[in-house]
Amino acid sequence: MLQEQDLGHWRRTHYSSEISPSIGDSEVVVMGWVASVRDHGNIQFIILKDMHGEVQITAKKGECSEPIFEMAKEVKEHSSIGVRGKVRPQEKAPNGAEVVPSEIRAFSIAKKAAPFMMQGKTSTVGIDTRLDLRAVDLRRNYLGAIFRIRQTVLNSVREFLARQKFIEVNTPKMIATATEGGAALFPIFYYDREAFLAQSPQLYKEQLTMAFESVFEVGPIFRAEPSRTNRHLSEAISIDVERAFVDYNDVMSLLERMIVNIIETIKERNADDLKFLESQLPAVELPFPKYTYSDLIDKLQEAGERIQWGDDISPQVMKSLQDDRLNSFYFIIDWPTSTKPFYVKPGTADGGRVCESFDLMYGALEMSSGSTRINRKDQLVERMSKQGLKPDAFDYHLRVFDYGVPPHAGFGLGLERLMMALTKIENIRDATLYPRDIDRLAP
Amino acid sequence: MLQEQDLGHWRRTHYSSEISPSIGDSEVVVMGWVASVRDHGNIQFIILKDMHGEVQITAKKGECSEPIFEMAKEVKEHSSIGVRGKVRPQEKAPNGAEVVPSEIRAFSIAKKAAPFMMQGKTSTVGIDTRLDLRAVDLRRNYLGAIFRIRQTVLNSVREFLARQKFIEVNTPKMIATATEGGAALFPIFYYDREAFLAQSPQLYKEQLTMAFESVFEVGPIFRAEPSRTNRHLSEAISIDVERAFVDYNDVMSLLERMIVNIIETIKERNADDLKFLESQLPAVELPFPKYTYSDLIDKLQEAGERIQWGDDISPQVMKSLQDDRLNSFYFIIDWPTSTKPFYVKPGTADGGRVCESFDLMYGALEMSSGSTRINRKDQLVERMSKQGLKPDAFDYHLRVFDYGVPPHAGFGLGLERLMMALTKIENIRDATLYPRDIDRLAP
Repeated sequence: MLQEQDLGHWRRTHYSSEISPSIGDSEVVVMGWVASVRDHGNIQFIILKDMHGEVQITAKKGECSEPIFEMAKEVKEHSSIGVRGKVRPQEKAPNGAEVVPSEIRAFSIAKKAAPFMMQGKTSTVGIDTRLDLRAVDLRRNYLGAIFRIRQTVLNSVREFLARQKFIEVNTPKMIATATEGGAALFPIFYYDREAFLAQSPQLYKEQLTMAFESVFEVGPIFRAEPSRTNRHLSEAISIDVERAFVDYNDVMSLLERMIVNIIETIKERNADDLKFLESQLPAVELPFPKYTYSDLIDKLQEAGERIQWGDDISPQVMKSLQDDRLNSFYFIIDWPTSTKPFYVKPGTADGGRVCESFDLMYGALEMSSGSTRINRKDQLVERMSKQGLKPDAFDYHLRVFDYGVPPHAGFGLGLERLMMALTKIENIRDATLYPRDIDRLAP
Repeated sequence: MLQEQDLGHWRRTHYSSEISPSIGDSEVVVMGWVASVRDHGNIQFIILKDMHGEVQITAKKGECSEPIFEMAKEVKEHSSIGVRGKVRPQEKAPNGAEVVPSEIRAFSIAKKAAPFMMQGKTSTVGIDTRLDLRAVDLRRNYLGAIFRIRQTVLNSVREFLARQKFIEVNTPKMIATATEGGAALFPIFYYDREAFLAQSPQLYKEQLTMAFESVFEVGPIFRAEPSRTNRHLSEAISIDVERAFVDYNDVMSLLERMIVNIIETIKERNADDLKFLESQLPAVELPFPKYTYSDLIDKLQEAGERIQWGDDISPQVMKSLQDDRLNSFYFIIDWPTSTKPFYVKPGTADGGRVCESFDLMYGALEMSSGSTRINRKDQLVERMSKQGLKPDAFDYHLRVFDYGVPPHAGFGLGLERLMMALTKIENIRDATLYPRDIDRLAP
């Protein structure tokens, strides 16, 4: 009878991907979870899945011992097991080989059937059912492909920025002062004081250009947005980049090259995952199209939209423009100064009516915001006051500007939104392992 | 007169490290901050520092134009400037060359002198003065070396774990339930509910072994410890590793090999920084020494310490053992089950009195804690109850154990403490950019 046993001295000798006819006559030990079982009476097939793929275990009455055959019949999907046995060529099995078991050890027997199907791209149940049992949901092939691609995105970003001489930093997530006004912040009890969770590493990464010139951070950001949409999370991963002695044009160029590099790297390293997803990566060409904010407003007005210069441009509104180039990546540049945070540098023309800023869009989805930053204290104080912020609250930040903060520019790029653009994920929650939103704080 | 100007179309053509006699007669543009100025009357030396090193600017009366010479005289330390000029061989200058300025542009003029010296390993002021102006403090050569080494540590960890087929994950920092009891947690207002900041990714990384087998995370952890010591932070970076189908011996082996790999990588990539620090990396040999908890208690009792089996072993107490091998990295293994969290797997001998656990120490400093984990629901529930935790509060975690959680083991390694061991930093605050503790929430 199949009973749960400890790992003991059992160790895997081969990953599933290594099981092939060339192994010959030596015994192997494979381990993983049971992706499926097929009972053909006198023959029992178990598909065992590990991090590298699948291996077929074939228990045939008369061929393996009676106790082992009986155990094989009892194996249930999702259980974690180890199998000792010999490898035999089998054309129909993954890698052209199967394992004939001489021993089966059940490390953990599944007590229930999963409430959703594990194969296929689409799920048969709603996302909340899946998220309530996320660790099991993540065993689905679809999410495996998504998170392997996510890994490539992060590796590619780090490799690209290292070549550009950036240093990776970590800035504090518990902060005393709201960076961009007080909205959408999560308050914390910090010992005997009030504090907040950081919405972005903005002011820290700017300061760090003083000492390190080119810095980036990959870390969590926290936004208490009470929205229920398919593209907002309360906790997300932001790729934040900041560089000294450059302006917004330079960092736009950096950003678009970074994205092209990400796409090329995924093509190289995730061919199988892309095939499984039946998904084309976005077609990109350098440079990405650039639209000034003012031109877009004109076009939108021509298209009959009731929008005024100074309004935000919403995703819905963008859809009314019939322009194929707006289906992929493009920049909207030179936003009204009044629409952007205090640290964004106003342009020199026209009394600073527009600022040196950009949003990177993918279709109607905002990916990234960036700008040239103000690097002088008096200008910062002036912009803060205009936006109704109290400079006193930013004393620790402002004092740094007495010591020669270099000109600098940067951007923040939302990892989950980028994943949506790259892999056509419909709900941003599937681009993160354990999503957080106004309704969901668990698991 | 020297006046602040925008970056405009100025761009750096060369980093300081690229300024050498071989450049020849073409003009260069260098940028950075002014590390020092020396006024010799008719000759003015400016040491300009960028992310790659230093370059000497030499303005000589009669050789450069009168306005430029006057500007060079006005340049103040810490200001951010750009210099256009020609390169000339100069034996005494960094890289054997200096720049003769034809144009100087001040992007940001320092208004104050820094309250500490920038050169040298030790600072002339207390750490709080430095931390209050951390962005400027980070320009010190000493901290530059520390954070370049930190970068190597993180790169080395990622490269090492990628070779071992680990996937990097990010788990939520806002959680509903205290992982290891309710102590030392920061509470959050999560919309209309109470939530907490995660003390560790423990339960998430364990769950993720179901789908991904081998996972790691590099991310912030939050501990509301009201301690004022040189080795505690309220927010730190943890390197968390978890792997399926292995036990604590396997992950101890992984951890010690990872640390040896880190040390080798620093030797390769940070030779200059090590030279500047005049610091020897720890001498290590595989395997690291292992002491069982019970043996150490015996030794401590022999050494006259009043310590009982079941007590924690404090850093102070460890110092009373005269054993050279205790000055570097070593493991304390097989701790009393009662001293470890509920998810740690009790051993099979002796009714589970000790558990499959380890601490990695460096001298008296704890670096890492790890263990084999329980992978069965009934055992988890039993251990929770024994520790006074309510299994109901862990419903979202426990339900996963109905679906075949594999045997697994892992550890958490404190990045800042590891940096202390590697570079002999005296105060853990200098191993992090912007430290957080009970007294400090800013900058």
